Amino acid sequence: SKYEYVKLFEQNITLLPNTWLVVRVDGHSFHRFTSEHDFAKPNDIRSLQLMNYAAQRCMQEMQDIVLAYGQSDEFSFVFRRSTNLYKRREAKITSTLCSLFTSNFIFHWKRFFADLELKYPPSFDARAVCYPTDQNLRDYMSWRQADCHINNLYNTAFWSLVQDTSNPRTEREAQAILKDTDSAAKNELLFTQYGINYNKLPEIFRKGSTLFRRLSEVAASTRDGTSEVKRTKNLVVVEHGDIIGDKFWQENPQILSI
Amino acid sequence: SKYEYVKLFEQNITLLPNTWLVVRVDGHSFHRFTSEHDFAKPNDIRSLQLMNYAAQRCMQEMQDIVLAYGQSDEFSFVFRRSTNLYKRREAKITSTLCSLFTSNFIFHWKRFFADLELKYPPSFDARAVCYPTDQNLRDYMSWRQADCHINNLYNTAFWSLVQDTSNPRTEREAQAILKDTDSAAKNELLFTQYGINYNKLPEIFRKGSTLFRRLSEVAASTRDGTSEVKRTKNLVVVEHGDIIGDKFWQENPQILSI
Amino acid sequence: SKYEYVKLFEQNITLLPNTWLVVRVDGHSFHRFTSEHDFAKPNDIRSLQLMNYAAQRCMQEMQDIVLAYGQSDEFSFVFRRSTNLYKRREAKITSTLCSLFTSNFIFHWKRFFADLELKYPPSFDARAVCYPTDQNLRDYMSWRQADCHINNLYNTAFWSLVQDTSNPRTEREAQAILKDTDSAAKNELLFTQYGINYNKLPEIFRKGSTLFRRLSEVAASTRDGTSEVKRTKNLVVVEHGDIIGDKFWQENPQILSI
Amino acid sequence: SKYEYVKLFEQNITLLPNTWLVVRVDGHSFHRFTSEHDFAKPNDIRSLQLMNYAAQRCMQEMQDIVLAYGQSDEFSFVFRRSTNLYKRREAKITSTLCSLFTSNFIFHWKRFFADLELKYPPSFDARAVCYPTDQNLRDYMSWRQADCHINNLYNTAFWSLVQDTSNPRTEREAQAILKDTDSAAKNELLFTQYGINYNKLPEIFRKGSTLFRRLSEVAASTRDGTSEVKRTKNLVVVEHGDIIGDKFWQENPQILSI
Ligand SMILES: Nc1nc2c(ncn2[C@H]2C[C@H](O)[C@@H](COP(=O)(O)OP(=O)(O)OP(=O)(O)O)O2)c(=O)[nH]1
Ligand SMILES: Nc1nc2c(ncn2[C@H]2C[C@H](O)[C@@H](COP(=O)(O)OP(=O)(O)OP(=O)(O)O)O2)c(=O)[nH]1
Ligand SMILES: Nc1nc2c(ncn2[C@H]2C[C@H](O)[C@@H](COP(=O)(O)OP(=O)(O)OP(=O)(O)O)O2)c(=O)[nH]1
Ligand SMILES: Nc1nc2c(ncn2[C@H]2C[C@H](O)[C@@H](COP(=O)(O)OP(=O)(O)OP(=O)(O)O)O2)c(=O)[nH]1
Ligand SMILES: O=P(O)(O)OP(=O)(O)OP(=O)(O)O
Ligand SMILES: O=P(O)(O)OP(=O)(O)OP(=O)(O)O
Ligand SMILES: O=P(O)(O)OP(=O)(O)OP(=O)(O)O
Ligand SMILES: O=P(O)(O)OP(=O)(O)OP(=O)(O)O
Ligand SMILES: [Mg+2]
Ligand SMILES: [Mg+2]
Ligand SMILES: [Mg+2]
Ligand SMILES: [Mg+2]
Ligand SMILES: [Mg+2]
Ligand SMILES: [Mg+2]
Ligand SMILES: [Mg+2]
Ligand SMILES: [Mg+2]
Ligand SMILES: [Mg+2]
Ligand SMILES: [Mg+2]
Ligand SMILES: [Mg+2]
Ligand SMILES: [Mg+2]
Repeated sequence: SKYEYVKLFEQNITLLPNTWLVVRVDGHSFHRFTSEHDFAKPNDIRSLQLMNYAAQRCMQEMQDIVLAYGQSDEFSFVFRRSTNLYKRREAKITSTLCSLFTSNFIFHWKRFFADLELKYPPSFDARAVCYPTDQNLRDYMSWRQADCHINNLYNTAFWSLVQDTSNPRTEREAQAILKDTDSAAKNELLFTQYGINYNKLPEIFRKGSTLFRRLSEVAASTRDGTSEVKRTKNLVVVEHGDIIGDKFWQENPQILSI
Repeated sequence: SKYEYVKLFEQNITLLPNTWLVVRVDGHSFHRFTSEHDFAKPNDIRSLQLMNYAAQRCMQEMQDIVLAYGQSDEFSFVFRRSTNLYKRREAKITSTLCSLFTSNFIFHWKRFFADLELKYPPSFDARAVCYPTDQNLRDYMSWRQADCHINNLYNTAFWSLVQDTSNPRTEREAQAILKDTDSAAKNELLFTQYGINYNKLPEIFRKGSTLFRRLSEVAASTRDGTSEVKRTKNLVVVEHGDIIGDKFWQENPQILSI
Repeated sequence: SKYEYVKLFEQNITLLPNTWLVVRVDGHSFHRFTSEHDFAKPNDIRSLQLMNYAAQRCMQEMQDIVLAYGQSDEFSFVFRRSTNLYKRREAKITSTLCSLFTSNFIFHWKRFFADLELKYPPSFDARAVCYPTDQNLRDYMSWRQADCHINNLYNTAFWSLVQDTSNPRTEREAQAILKDTDSAAKNELLFTQYGINYNKLPEIFRKGSTLFRRLSEVAASTRDGTSEVKRTKNLVVVEHGDIIGDKFWQENPQILSI
Repeated sequence: SKYEYVKLFEQNITLLPNTWLVVRVDGHSFHRFTSEHDFAKPNDIRSLQLMNYAAQRCMQEMQDIVLAYGQSDEFSFVFRRSTNLYKRREAKITSTLCSLFTSNFIFHWKRFFADLELKYPPSFDARAVCYPTDQNLRDYMSWRQADCHINNLYNTAFWSLVQDTSNPRTEREAQAILKDTDSAAKNELLFTQYGINYNKLPEIFRKGSTLFRRLSEVAASTRDGTSEVKRTKNLVVVEHGDIIGDKFWQENPQILSI
């Protein structure tokens, strides 16, 4: 029709070929969302597991995602450098993945929050970033995991002070106490005042969650169903270890070599 | 941390100031989604109403949306030209609105599909486009409504042929019959063979749905609750009329004048 | 060849259709260039005329330029909103015009600087900006002309103080004297100390130069060369008047109506 | 002033960090330019030397250019991946380099075309492209050199046929003769019909020109001027060898390692 010319106004930004594509999804106003849904503080394990589950579903849907890392209300997805998904169109990739993550988060909510109804529909934002080298990509991952560590240590100390039953502090007081303390001091405070050995807290809280594909043996039944056999499948696995050091990357060379 | 430099790789594309921003959201693989959920063909009224409801919620959340138009599995949202939402950052606007629409679509699913469970989580893509003039914007809206008309007339004829109980055609046959027919021929076929007066079909099918804000009188109770008063509120209303001609725009001058 | 894939890495940014395209060219390090070539201060008429001449040549080469405005070491070129030059590819338009302007500036140098050899090759930068409305475009033009006025008034006062033969000031002193003075004070200083009526200075210094096309009668000879006739031609004319007020635009409605 | 808001309409596209930046400059309508200036066909050595000289000057001005490659009417400049020139703003880099190259081309024209006046000011276009890996960059360079080879072999055969004094062909005939011939056939034709051993033609025609920096010993006089000493300086050198194979890159590891 004579109106079709308006389609030419679309910009169609594409992402530089042969770079790692990272899409980071982050909960929109999750300060409010977590508070209205009474999430445990500083970490609600149900929420982290739901996030992981939703991310896993995204990876099953989009085979070009080779790695994902989640913490707090965010998840980063890494597409292999050679991906040609949607011809690398920025808006298509970003919006579709953001929508898919949102959708799975809500769809599977009740699986992790059996007793808690969603009060209102949560949403997420997303952005795509290109990283030219493996080192840049690893630095990106390190950035997010370091952020997880810093925030979690702070939040653990903060909520310990505020939820201290014998000597509860206001949020303002807790903030003042922690202001200008370094990591050591926060560890110390947690240990001496609350008997918490920070390094013994669950890794999922301290290190976040890393999802990637690994060839794994799975049990399968033969076609006639009479006996069990082992098959290898490229499964998405979830870990909570360190991804800043070299070890993780050496043990999983398939991630960067794709 | 020493990793923070990676944030500098973000591009932060912004949308040209003083232009109408249109974000179009479109169902991802809704051919499959509608078929797996047995949507009525060619139009499932529940689906259209759910889409409208979700769009309305988006407009309530984002006050800078002045107009929205929906048909089939898509919705277009128009932000006022002067909007400074997220400093007009393309990815933030597109991803947030796409996510919010997705979220509301699922969250309110059961309100419109009382008897039908969602089988899997649906998703949407989204894109932002800038239109410099009112005329360009109106041509955009006309483009979508003309598309609605053309597709709906075709689909109505197509499914009439396929679902014809006395003489059912295969999809391939129906396609062949309709190939190269013009609008008049399709109208004729519908009327003579199926007694369908196309122009009498519900406007929501033929024209789609237009959402906009209008100062409306609403009943409210006084503070002490003893008596009723009228208040004017800027409500989001839904219409299904023509938006290609001038009439709609003349009757609602507030839309473009914001 | 197998290397051709590298062409796909080109981004091909395009400029939004139906907007005024402005390309502003600005002398690279002209502080140094004007000083090494002993330009008259604050304005060297030869330089301004060379700039205008080069700009005129650009307009003759690129018919889609409807307007140009120059002052100091810069020139802004306005392409009609409907231009499809290089399919509105940003880099092609910007680089080609920048190069063409540079080229003409050097090529015609001796026409205006008959006695002065170029000491080294000058260069320019350029950028493209889109303006959606006539008002935005006029505000852009006003911005540049206001900038011309402010700088020129300041520079005139500044160099009067520094070049004052009876009481020469250092550049630092002149700067200190002018710091925090408003327009009125600078006018006053020029008049009382140097007998300069600022408003009587040549318009080309105070208002810059505006180039645009106007249907003009030109003398032409008939084919057989025996007699003279008048023809109308769309000539590029140069003016130095105000372009902030409405008058210029009302007298030249052809500029914005193209 | 109240007009300054228009500055916000500038887009400021930046080029992805940590990628090789290539800016390719190409003569605008050099088909016409070379023909109006009667350039020797297919190669005018004066033109190639002027291009090289201009490129060298650009490299002296912009220290972040580590490599340049020229052939025909084009030159490609490679900026080191870590360059922060103009904060990697695309328009600033592209336009400035394009202008500088143009400027040097004209400024130094007479140095290479002593007897030939420029008839009109030539211009160039330019574009920037990012390459994430060394391999991509080398493929880019190979692409340009392969292009040089293919065009030059074709043009040499073409102009031999057209300029054949004993049996001159029209351009159309020459084109028809060469249509669908491979490299071997063109070599054969040149050798048997014109006694030209293509591989003995000057390397600058067949391979183009590669400019890069190399630590070189230069003669210098001591401060008191009494004696000569050797100093090492990072000079821009020009070569015409193969850059597709590994040899060039192995012999000049400094280029990619910067
Ligand atoms: N209580 C609780 N809060 C959480 C948990 N995970 C995330 N949050 C909260 C803490 C922060 O307020 C918020 C995440 O921080 P953000 O910087 O993303 O801020 P927010 O989402 O509010 O704003 P945004 O829309 O992203 O700019 O979510 C959790 O497991 N438990
Ligand atoms: N039965 C039925 N189908 C519908 C209804 N509304 C939309 N659809 C279907 C018809 C089309 O197959 C599809 C929309 O067309 P699209 O061009 O958006 O294709 P689709 O979403 O499959 O692919 P996409 O991911 O958008 O490229 O949704 C409805 O009310 N009833
Ligand atoms: N003496 C003299 N100087 C002039 C004349 N026109 C322009 N200039 C000088 C004054 C300024 O130093 C300079 C223009 O200012 P810019 O802001 O463009 O600075 P410049 O070109 O040095 O740096 P840039 O590369 O543009 O960032 O050119 C003139 O007619 N006479
Ligand atoms: N006779 C002669 N012609 C040359 C020489 N170097 C380049 N040329 C001509 C051959 C081609 O016609 C032209 C370069 O081809 P291009 O593809 O760049 O085309 P052109 O510059 O005409 O158009 P463009 O503005 O780049 O699209 O320049 C030379 O040394 N001698
Ligand atoms: O949202 P923040 O504050 O954690 O930081 P950001 O995500 O980089 O900021 P934005 O969402 O505005 O891009
Ligand atoms: O999806 P289509 O085919 O209706 O058309 P489009 O939305 O313009 O195509 P794309 O989704 O690939 O941008
Ligand atoms: O160059 P300036 O300082 O006059 O201002 P600008 O041109 O807006 O700055 P830039 O050249 O860095 O875009
Ligand atoms: O100019 P061409 O035809 O050699 O090829 P190109 O430079 O890739 O084309 P364009 O100048 O239009 O980008
Ligand atoms: Mg954020
Ligand atoms: Mg958040
Ligand atoms: Mg967050
Ligand atoms: Mg689509
Ligand atoms: Mg769809
Ligand atoms: Mg659709
Ligand atoms: Mg500048
Ligand atoms: Mg300047
Ligand atoms: Mg300037
Ligand atoms: Mg070209
Ligand atoms: Mg060329
Ligand atoms: Mg060329």
